[in-house]
Formats: sequence, structure tokens, C-alpha cells
Amino acid sequence: MIQHPAFDVEPWRLRESELDVDILAQSESLFTLANGHIGWRGNLDEGEPHGMQGSYLNGVYELKPLPYAEAGYGYPEQDQSVVNVTDGKVIRLLVNDEPFDIRYGDLHEHTRVLDFRTGQLERRADWSTPAGSRIRVTSTRMVSMVQRAIAAIKYEVEAVDAVRVVVQSELVANEPANKPAGFDPRAALELDSPWTALDHQSHDAHAELVNQTGYSALLVSTAMDHDVAGPAGTNVSSEDFEDLARVTVTTALAPGEKLTIVKYVAYGWSGVRTMEALRDQTDAALVTAREIGWDGLAGEQTAFLDDFWKGADVELDGDEEIQQAVRFSLFHVLQSGVRNEQRAIPAKGLTGSGYDGHAFWDSEAFVLRVLSLTAPDTVAHALRWRHSTLPMARDRALLLGFRGAAFPWRTIAGAECSSYWPAGTAAFHVSADVADAVVRYLHTSGDETFEHDFGAEILIETARLFLSLGHFDVDGGFRIDGVTGPDEYSAIADNNIYTNLMVQRNLHVAADAAERHRDVASNLEVTEDEVAQWRHAAEAMVIPYDEQLGVHCQSEGFTRHEVWNFDATKEDQYPLLLHFPYFDLYRKQVVKQADLVLAMFVRGDAFTAEQKKANFDYYEELTVRDSSLSACIQAVLAAEVGYLPLAYDYMAEAALMDIEDREHNTRDGLHMASLAGTWIAIVQGLAGMRMWKDSLSFTPRLPEGITRVAINIIFRGRHLRVEATAKSTRYELSEGDAIELCHGNHVFTLSVGKPSVHKPVAKLNPGPPPTQPPGREPDHRVADAKREKSDA
Amino acid sequence: MIQHPAFDVEPWRLRESELDVDILAQSESLFTLANGHIGWRGNLDEGEPHGMQGSYLNGVYELKPLPYAEAGYGYPEQDQSVVNVTDGKVIRLLVNDEPFDIRYGDLHEHTRVLDFRTGQLERRADWSTPAGSRIRVTSTRMVSMVQRAIAAIKYEVEAVDAVRVVVQSELVANEPANKPAGFDPRAALELDSPWTALDHQSHDAHAELVNQTGYSALLVSTAMDHDVAGPAGTNVSSEDFEDLARVTVTTALAPGEKLTIVKYVAYGWSGVRTMEALRDQTDAALVTAREIGWDGLAGEQTAFLDDFWKGADVELDGDEEIQQAVRFSLFHVLQSGVRNEQRAIPAKGLTGSGYDGHAFWDSEAFVLRVLSLTAPDTVAHALRWRHSTLPMARDRALLLGFRGAAFPWRTIAGAECSSYWPAGTAAFHVSADVADAVVRYLHTSGDETFEHDFGAEILIETARLFLSLGHFDVDGGFRIDGVTGPDEYSAIADNNIYTNLMVQRNLHVAADAAERHRDVASNLEVTEDEVAQWRHAAEAMVIPYDEQLGVHCQSEGFTRHEVWNFDATKEDQYPLLLHFPYFDLYRKQVVKQADLVLAMFVRGDAFTAEQKKANFDYYEELTVRDSSLSACIQAVLAAEVGYLPLAYDYMAEAALMDIEDREHNTRDGLHMASLAGTWIAIVQGLAGMRMWKDSLSFTPRLPEGITRVAINIIFRGRHLRVEATAKSTRYELSEGDAIELCHGNHVFTLSVGKPSVHKPVAKLNPGPPPTQPPGREPDHRVADAKREKSDA
Repeated sequence: MIQHPAFDVEPWRLRESELDVDILAQSESLFTLANGHIGWRGNLDEGEPHGMQGSYLNGVYELKPLPYAEAGYGYPEQDQSVVNVTDGKVIRLLVNDEPFDIRYGDLHEHTRVLDFRTGQLERRADWSTPAGSRIRVTSTRMVSMVQRAIAAIKYEVEAVDAVRVVVQSELVANEPANKPAGFDPRAALELDSPWTALDHQSHDAHAELVNQTGYSALLVSTAMDHDVAGPAGTNVSSEDFEDLARVTVTTALAPGEKLTIVKYVAYGWSGVRTMEALRDQTDAALVTAREIGWDGLAGEQTAFLDDFWKGADVELDGDEEIQQAVRFSLFHVLQSGVRNEQRAIPAKGLTGSGYDGHAFWDSEAFVLRVLSLTAPDTVAHALRWRHSTLPMARDRALLLGFRGAAFPWRTIAGAECSSYWPAGTAAFHVSADVADAVVRYLHTSGDETFEHDFGAEILIETARLFLSLGHFDVDGGFRIDGVTGPDEYSAIADNNIYTNLMVQRNLHVAADAAERHRDVASNLEVTEDEVAQWRHAAEAMVIPYDEQLGVHCQSEGFTRHEVWNFDATKEDQYPLLLHFPYFDLYRKQVVKQADLVLAMFVRGDAFTAEQKKANFDYYEELTVRDSSLSACIQAVLAAEVGYLPLAYDYMAEAALMDIEDREHNTRDGLHMASLAGTWIAIVQGLAGMRMWKDSLSFTPRLPEGITRVAINIIFRGRHLRVEATAKSTRYELSEGDAIELCHGNHVFTLSVGKPSVHKPVAKLNPGPPPTQPPGREPDHRVADAKREKSDA
Repeated sequence: MIQHPAFDVEPWRLRESELDVDILAQSESLFTLANGHIGWRGNLDEGEPHGMQGSYLNGVYELKPLPYAEAGYGYPEQDQSVVNVTDGKVIRLLVNDEPFDIRYGDLHEHTRVLDFRTGQLERRADWSTPAGSRIRVTSTRMVSMVQRAIAAIKYEVEAVDAVRVVVQSELVANEPANKPAGFDPRAALELDSPWTALDHQSHDAHAELVNQTGYSALLVSTAMDHDVAGPAGTNVSSEDFEDLARVTVTTALAPGEKLTIVKYVAYGWSGVRTMEALRDQTDAALVTAREIGWDGLAGEQTAFLDDFWKGADVELDGDEEIQQAVRFSLFHVLQSGVRNEQRAIPAKGLTGSGYDGHAFWDSEAFVLRVLSLTAPDTVAHALRWRHSTLPMARDRALLLGFRGAAFPWRTIAGAECSSYWPAGTAAFHVSADVADAVVRYLHTSGDETFEHDFGAEILIETARLFLSLGHFDVDGGFRIDGVTGPDEYSAIADNNIYTNLMVQRNLHVAADAAERHRDVASNLEVTEDEVAQWRHAAEAMVIPYDEQLGVHCQSEGFTRHEVWNFDATKEDQYPLLLHFPYFDLYRKQVVKQADLVLAMFVRGDAFTAEQKKANFDYYEELTVRDSSLSACIQAVLAAEVGYLPLAYDYMAEAALMDIEDREHNTRDGLHMASLAGTWIAIVQGLAGMRMWKDSLSFTPRLPEGITRVAINIIFRGRHLRVEATAKSTRYELSEGDAIELCHGNHVFTLSVGKPSVHKPVAKLNPGPPPTQPPGREPDHRVADAKREKSDA
């Protein structure tokens, strides 16, 4: 069902078997290599054609003013905007007297393969110049997950006909990104030439550039070196300029002869260190990389990934595309965070400049949810980044008139960059989402040092925020008025149920943490009375419920609003935000993305099974999924209430969001949260995994056609494998102490070497599923067997 | 109590007896002369020093982009911004070899007097040059209310010592306005040099400039001519340039000799007519003015104002300052509209560039409320302007997804110019306010032609808007969700009571109008079913009421919100909008300006007396009056529920808003609605005037110290005078058919020549008045007699 014929289905690879210039920007996003520190979009080596050039270092941004026709108190004045750093990917090739450019001459074959087990992107081109000289180019690229500062390219030119070739391997600064234009608030404007050159040097096959941004004053050092192997007479020279460093290799190749160049690129950046220190740092990394060599780097990368997949792989029988998609997703989620080391995980990872490179709440609520159980160390780093921004979050809370810490809606370095407060500042749930990610990490890791050193402070400061944000009404209820929940088609509403439930837990866990870590609490001047108030507010939390309709309210009054006129809305009017005013969206019953449904997932303990079903049915008819954060959550709840075919459909939608470009903006970068959502839909949807406090439970229910799901997770140092089929579920522990698990309602203990096999959990019969707004039904997913049958 | 010693109290004049450069911008606003078409701020003749230069033509604006960091569907892209037109006020004087500039030399005396009966601003300066040569300058200025295109200045230089003088009378284009800087969203940014010269000419004492704006492409023609009288040897010459035309008069004056120059200035503008036609038009106006001559213009002006005051004067004994202030207010309200002829009445009239020169709903809700009963013809013109913008209002409604017509929150020419939709687009009540002004004008004028030709269409199109804006909920109630009412410290709320009550009437009157004017309805394709729906929606209108607290809710849920922490708010943190985020203001119980209280005034029929008192008491404690639109309305309701001293205090606050610069932004222009509010507070507050459908009632209750209030109004062609003292109220009709009136609950008939005298209405004993937020109590007003007593 992958709609674009260029992409083939393989379980461990994403393969593009022909080059389609029209979807270049999309394929560049899909073929991004990254390690959480460096991100290289899948641009062609020769730099063009391209959809959008992208070379990123996590945390590197430029400042630009946020304009307001009518300013207001507390509006952020500066945006932090991701910028392209020096492009180290560029390798241009001249064949005889003609440049290798796939738009000219004859391209006999062009394939690109991203391998999830080697972490390499391989490109093969078989090309004849316009004058008819034929060559083969094989370029293999990696961004090392082991050597954080290093990316490398093995570039091989093989002559079919006798040719003279010139290879120019470059570092290019101030390269225009060529971002797509047009009205779309989700994209970002481009900054012209943000870089000032501080230093440029070259000798032999080595060159480097050091440059600095004008306003944010961040330094980036980029260095490259090369191993060159070619026939006798191969020449290497280098030169350097302010925005360009170039190593030039020239040679003549007889038919069958090869020129092989390994390019090592080292990146470093800092807002603190000097130019000299940074230059030395990248040179040192470069020396190490060259000593390890291409094969060494490749070997490390594969070993690293082998280890990852052992603890994280998700196997799925019955739908090849989903099998591929979930590994593609996990690979990219890993890439977004693996070596991020106290930086944010942006909404697009390091795959594109969409959303200005900002990180949002979905980092904690979606991406870290996956990484907590698959690559726990990355989570500690990401949360330490949040912790490092506490001073800014405290300032923001103070500026707004509250206590504690208010984390920003969107940011790169920690300062609020949202210029539209109803969907930014008002979305205070972001702070509760951060707290929730802390709690989840503590559950899955048992990392008490982290809790003491970082976690407790986050929990306490967010609890403080919320106590000051809410108030006790005349009936004693604790209300949080005028806030915006996850659903971006509502805003500034009273008692958003997601926010209130998340805050309820935030307050409780903060109280627990303050009591467990009295030294931390004491340093923060937490009083007993304060802790008692947190608990009191949590217990008195207002949870809006519509007695007449028998459903919870997304926020107070929501269910009295007019239902959006879906019948009058045309298919090309989605996403609605591009065709209707916020004014009208906010005041009607129309849901962009799971909000109450998300609450029923993350705070499932706050709802009965009957309520879950009633709520799901009601809100399903209002939810248009104009956000990529929705389908995966709907998949989880659809599975929980028993709508298994629907869960399957939503799982597939999440899984194929980027591969099939479902939202038409994969060009701007991958939807990291939706990629994470693929795992969530399978592991927490189909396998029904839940964590409540210290317990871990599974309620596997497979939709028709999915014959087997096997998941691997890491929980408190244990490697756990759960394999479910229609006949049974098999639990196996490969490492770590024995653990108590739940299968459905049945509690059992699992220990190493003693797999435990259980019968399927009881089926649910929820009746016919609810319908979606017309035209917004998810594509109905058909499993392989059935599809083959109908094809036959 | 006028705090600045420069202003003296006189019943028919505003007199400044010394020049204070520090309050120059404020005094320029106060001394503005205007006729609804031309506005000249009270800048000194010689152009400097000045606070803000201001020469305006109603309807002349330039376009500028509205920037958004995050754009959204339906956001207006262009602002219409008032710009200074060619300045025709400038008359510079050289005495011997030194310029007359009050900052240099010795200023022995400087007085300015604005006379409300002659409509002239007289300035007298007694000055010696730095070298010691003494002269007296008398400059009298008027903007004609009879000759719409004409302003004139009589400029007289009298020599005390023998002097040579040069007078340069000028037209200056692209003069910098020198607007105040700093963060204040209520001010406006300045456009640099908006004018391009199309033509400039001069001969003898005549000169003219024609220029055009770059983006809005509006043409302005300005011409001047002069009558010069001086000693033998007086020379006159002229010259012209792109941005300057100049007539120069030179003479030598012996001690006691005078040079007298009358400057006639004619203005015309158009976005349609050619340069040539416009030039001829201003020249023709200029010829007429010169033929009428200074004395003729002055005589016309006085006669016109005599007539106005006969039908509009408000007399008040016991407080001289208020007596002065109400006449000052009426004079400026008249100036804002008298010859506006199908243009808007901006929030600042033509007295300054505050709010970008935009007109808001307060034009209809406040200014036209006064003019309907004092200068009814101006109201027809202002409403015809609204009618002329119907095509834009229909487009706006359509763009937003509604039927009918949505009038803009702020505009000059009719297009929405609000960039902040929660306080702009969402404030749909503006359309109901326009409809209400139509209804009011029809009541006070009985102008059936207007109803047929213009009014009915406005009523019908606004009713259509509201039917499509609201919806019927499951209980059958008609709700209007997610809108913003008058109180700008709340926004995007459900069922704002003011909006709902105004819409309720709008729907009813539209139904009546459609039935009365079947041809109009038929042209607009109004169906019987549509009319029935309007009536049904009106009858089913949701009116939120808090049973527990026994008060109405400003909007649904409002009374459950946290009460603003007034105790923690410092006095220098008002206005709150400059010190707290909208986020927090919107979600708490804090009221910027009368909202429910305004509803109780304009829809007093929808509340019982008990409800009015309970509501007033409750909301009074929440209302901070950070808007100039509040005090006058609070005065009316305070008087109605019986808090007479409080009504007096609020009346005084409204009356002195600009003279005492209570909001610290009179520099940007006068608060036209608050000026209107002075009249409202006295006539509808103290005299208790109300109109319900065709009836007219008075319930005069005078606070202690106000010994007499006499008001004159024009109602359906009748001239009515109502004079109330503590002992009795006397009604007198000087023109027109007999009329039925109410005095309190007593109905009687009044006819010409038969005054009717009534005993005072019963006193109310409402108990102690409610308190205001700490620090926001109105200044307690002490009447003259009491003040003199305490001074003694």
C-alpha cells in the first residue's frame, strides 16, 4: 500500500529504487542520518538538485525578531531558529568536462538504501555524461552513533568508459536551504547568510572552517580529512575561503578502474568555548575518526545498532509494510536522541527545519515514551536538558505571575519562542508532560540518582507552577481555568481534562518526591504546608463530566458547543486550520488531535472501562486528525475498548505518516512524535502494554490479519520479550532479576530462562465502531494475506 | 480640582493661562479644532515646539502591512493607518532677525482659549526676542462647521517696539508627526513620508499642493489664500515646492502698528476623483471662503453653535468644573461628527493619531448615543458610512464562514484592521452595536426614509450574521460561544451576556424591519422562515445566571473563575494590560470596563431592579476601569440603583478624563467615547433618561451638592428641556408636537407652552455602596459648596 512506487518494502531497509525529483524534499527527510547531535538530510552528494538542504547541529540556532502588529505583555521578542551549519556532505564530481548532475546526461540506475542495522545510507548511480561517458558512483554515508562528532562518506567512482574525473569534496557555509515557500504556519522562514567566518584553513586533504552566528553568537567548527585511493597519477590539493573549504582530487580512470575517497567530517559547536579550543576539539575528533577508519566506524555502528535492536525490536507478521515502518520509525527515533547529550529532541528531530527546529511537548509525551523502554540513557540526557532550562522556566513563570517553572511551548535553548499565546503560553500542560516523562523514566529505569539530582526538582517546580495556576472554587474544587490542552482546535478553556489529570498526578508525585528527597525539598524551601496543598489540590481536582450526555468534557462547556459542520466541509479544506479561522474552530466541537482520548491513555486509571468506551465513541466522531500526534493515540484507545480493526487502521496511519507523506509536509522533516507513535500503537495498542506505578501489564489483542507481534523492551535493566499470536502470548526474560507482570488481569512472575506462556485475553465485543467525520475516516488497512487473496 | 494649574475653570471656555511645554501634547489634543472632515490639533502656529503634529482629513489613511510571526487563516494583512495630511496651520514669524519661538527670548504672557460658543481657538502671546524687541501676537483659528472644506486663521502681530517682521504662511507635506515612543499597544507607529507630490503651484498670496499616498492611492488637495493688512511697504510673495508652499509677508512695524493676516485653507481628498478635479474643488471652496471673509465665517460659526447649544446644552449647578467639562465634551463630540458626511467617527475623533485613527464600536455605542439626541443629522451620516461598508462586512462574514455582515473591530475605511483576533474578530458585538445605533436613531429621529434606504439592510444583515454565529443547544437554548464582549480583560467566552442581549434585540428588530419593509427584505432574499428563526433564536437566547451567587454571569463560567488578586496588585501596575499577560487576565474575575453593567444600561428591560443591584454590587468589586469606556456607564447604573455619591464620582471621572489626562494618553488624542460619557453620565445617570421603544422617561436623582441639572435634547424634532432640582423637576417643550413622557413611573403629556412640574422621584435606600478593587476607587468628588466650606 505504499503509494509511491519509488519505495520498496523490505523489513530492515528503506529502499528507493529510482530517483523522483518531485519528491526529493520528502526523500531527503526520510534518508536523513543523525545521531542526536549531527543531522544530515539525505541530500545528494553533489548538492543539487535538492528539495531542501539540511545540515544541523542540535542546539545551534540564530535569533530573529518576533514581530507583532499589536504587542502584549509577556510576548516573547526573539525567536530561536534552526539554521544550516556548514555543509560537510558536499562532494561534487566532474566527469571529463561535465558535472555529474542527475538532471543531465543519462541516469541508467539510481538506488538509495537506508539500512536500519548498519546505520548507513548507500547510494548507487549508474550514469553517462551528456557526451556519453559512463561511470558508476557508489556513495555510502554514516553519522556515527559511537563517535559523536563524526560523520563520514565513502565515495567511489568506477569508470565504465575511460574518463578523467575531478572530485571536489567541500565544506560549505551559508548555503541557501531553499525552503519551500507559501502560507503554512507550520513551516519556517529562512534566514539569509547567518554565518560570519572566523577562521579557515587547509593543507593536503584536510580543511576546516570556523564560523559564528551574528546574534546568538554560537561558534561552529567543521573540519574534514580524506583517505584517497586511486590509480597512479591521482592528485590531491586543497584550498580555503570564508564560506568554502575544498579538497580537490583529480585522476584519470581506465575502464574498470576506481577512485575511492573516504571523507571524515568532524563537527563541534559552543556558545562558551573559544574559537581556538573548538578548532582543536574538532581536529582531535577528526584524528580519532581517521585512525578508526571507515571499516572501523562502520563496525562500531553495526555493533551499536545490533545492541539496540536486541532490546528494542518490534516484529510483526501479517503486514510487511508495517513491519518495515516500525523499524524505520524506531531507527529515526533513536537517531533523534542517541547522542543528544543535554539537548532538546526537536519535533522534526534533526531531519528538517520544520517548526523552526523547535522542540515541543511531544518530545516528552511521545518520543521519550518510546526511548524510556528502548534506549533509556537517551531519556536521562533529554530530561537533563529540560532540567538545565529550569532557570529560564522559572523566569517565565515569574514573568507570567506564577510560582515554580513554566516550560516553553516551543524552544531550542529553553526560552519561550511562541508568538501566539493562545496556542503557546496557554498550553501549560507542557510542564506536566515534562514531569510525566520524569516519572515514567524513573519507573522504567529505577534511576534514583537521577531522581535526586534532577527529577525531584522538576517535579517540585512544576507542582508549584500548577498550584499557583489553579484555584479552589466556592465548592472546594480545584480548577485550572483558561488554558489550552493538546487539542489545538480548542484554546483558552476552563478545566481541560487532560491538563487537570496530568496536573493531578504531577502534584501527587511532587509531594512524594519532596518527602523522599528531603534535602532537595529543603534546598528548594518546600514546606510541609506546601506539600499538603499539592495533595489537597490533587484530590480536589475538577474533572468535567456531562451527566446529560454521559461523557467527560474535553473542557468545561465543550459538549454544549456547536458541533462542527462536517457535512459542509470539503475534503480539500483539511487541515482545517488552513481554511477556517481559529475563532470558529475554538468555539465548536471539533478536535484536531487526541486530547481527552490522550488523557484516557496516560491517565487510564482515572476512567472506568465504560467511560472509556463512551468517551471514545463520542470524541471519535469529532476528531479530524489534522495533527500527526493523533492517530497513534486513537489506535491505543481503539484497541483498549475493543475496536481492533480501527486500531489497526490508526496504527497504520501513524506508521506510514512520513513514508507516505500523509500530511504533505514530510519535506520539512519527519514527524518524530508520529514515528514514536508507531511503536506506541503496536506496543501499547495491540500488545496493550501499560505501566501504573511499578507494575507492568500486557493485554495483547491482535486485529485480524496480524498473526504475530513480538516486542522487546528494556525495563529496569531487564530485557523482556513478549510475543503474542492468536493462540497464546509468550513472555521471556533474557537479562535481569525476576519480575512480576500482568497478562490481562492475571499476575505472574517471570525469570530468566523460564518463559511463561498464556492463553489469549478475553475478546471484547464493543459493538460497531463509531464513525469519523465524513472524509476523515482512516484508510482501511488490509493485511498482507487478505490483500494477496483479493489480488489473486 | 483640575490638577494642572494651567487650565482655568470657565463655563463656556477652556482657558490655558500659561504655556507648559511638558504637557504640550495633551494641550494640543484638548485644543483641537475639527468639523468631522478636517481636524487640526492645537499645535502652535509656528510649528514648534510641539508634542505631536496633527492635521487630519477624516478617511485619509495609508496602508501598512500587519506582521505576524505565526500567521493564521483570516488574519488581516493590511492596516489602515491615519497619516498627517498637508499641514495648513503653519505660520512662522521672524522678528528682526530672530524666529518667534517660545523656547527662546522672554515670554511675558501666553494664553490659549477655546470657546465652545464661537468655535474658535484664540492664542495670545506677549514676547520679546532674545535681543529684547517686544511684540504681541494674537492668533485666532477656526475649522468651519458651515463651510466643510475650510479652516482659517486670523494672525495679528502688534509691535511694542519697532520691528521688522517676516511672516511665512505655509502648507507643509510629509511633516514628521513626532509621535511618542515606547511600549504602548494603544498608540500607533509612525509612517515616514507617505506623500508623493502630484502638483504644486503658487501666485500672489495663493498657493496649493496636491499629493497622494503611495499604497492607499488617496489624493489630497490643499490650497491657501490670504487677506493681508499692514502698513505701507508691506510685501507679499509666494513660492512652491514638492512638500512646501509658502506665502511670505514682510513689513516694518512702528510701535503700536499691526500686521493682520487672514489665512484661508481649503482641503479636499478623494480616492476616485482626478487631481485636476480635486484641485478645482479646493480652489472653489477657497474662493467662497475668501468672499465670506473672516467675520462672515466667524458669524456663521457662532450662529451654528448657538443653534446647537439651544438643543443640546447641559447646565449643572454645584460643580463648576463639571459644568465646564460637559460643555467641553459636547463641543468635542460635535466636532467629531458635525460634517463627517459618510465617514467614520474615530475613537479619537480627529484630535490625534491614537489607535491608528481607527473607529471602533464605541462610535456607535457612545458617541452616536449623544449625537442622536443633540445633533441627529450627524448620526444619519455616520450610520450611512457604516452602511457603505456593508460589502466589506459581508466579505468578512463570508471569509469567516458566516452569513450576513460582520463589521470590523477597528477600521478607517471599512476593512478589518485588527491583528489580534481574540480582542478583534471575536468581539462580534460590534455588529450588534451598529444595529443598536440604527434602532436608537430610528427612535429619536423617526426617520423612516433612513430606515427604508439604509437601516433595514443593516438590521437584516447583522441578524443574519448572528443567526449563523449562534446555535441551538440540546436544551433548545440559543448560544453564542467563544466570543469577546466589551470587557477586554475577558475574551473568547461562551454566552457573553452583553453580546447575547444585544443580539436578542438585534434579531427582534431585524424581524420587525423585514416585516415593515417587505421590498427591502425581498431584495435581500429574506424568507419568512428566516424571520421566524430570528425570532425563535431571540426568544431562546441563553442568559447565564449563577443561582448560587444570585448574580448574572458576564459570560458562562465567569463567576467560577478565580478573583484577581487585587491586594497583591500595586497601584503602578494599572492599567493591568501593560503589566500582566492576557492569559491571566482573561481567566480571572477582573473587569476592565463595564460589560454586564453596560448590558444593564442598554438592555435594562432584561433585568429586575433587584438583579441590577445585586449585579452592580458584585461586578463593582471586580472592575478596575482600565478603559475610558467604563466610568460613565458605572455612573448611570450607580445612579439607577441609588448610589448617588458614587454616580457623582464616576460622572466626574468621565468628565475629567481628558482635561485631567486621567489615562495618561490624552497626548494621543481625546477619548471621544468618554467625552460622550460625560453627557451619558449626567443625562442618563443623574437625570435618569431612558428610551424603551417609543417611550421616553426620566428619573432624576441628584447627588448631594449638585443643586440643579438642566438638560436640552432633541427628540423626533421636538426641543425638550428637563430641569431638575432637589425640590422638583420641570419639563418644557419649546418646539414640536405634544409628547407623552414618564417622570419616574408617572406618565404625563407635555406640549409647547405648558411646562409640567413634578415632585422628586422617591429616594432609594440601597444601603452602603460596594467597594472597588483597592486603589481603584474613583476620586471622591466634592461639590463646590462643600469644597468652599472645607477650604474656609
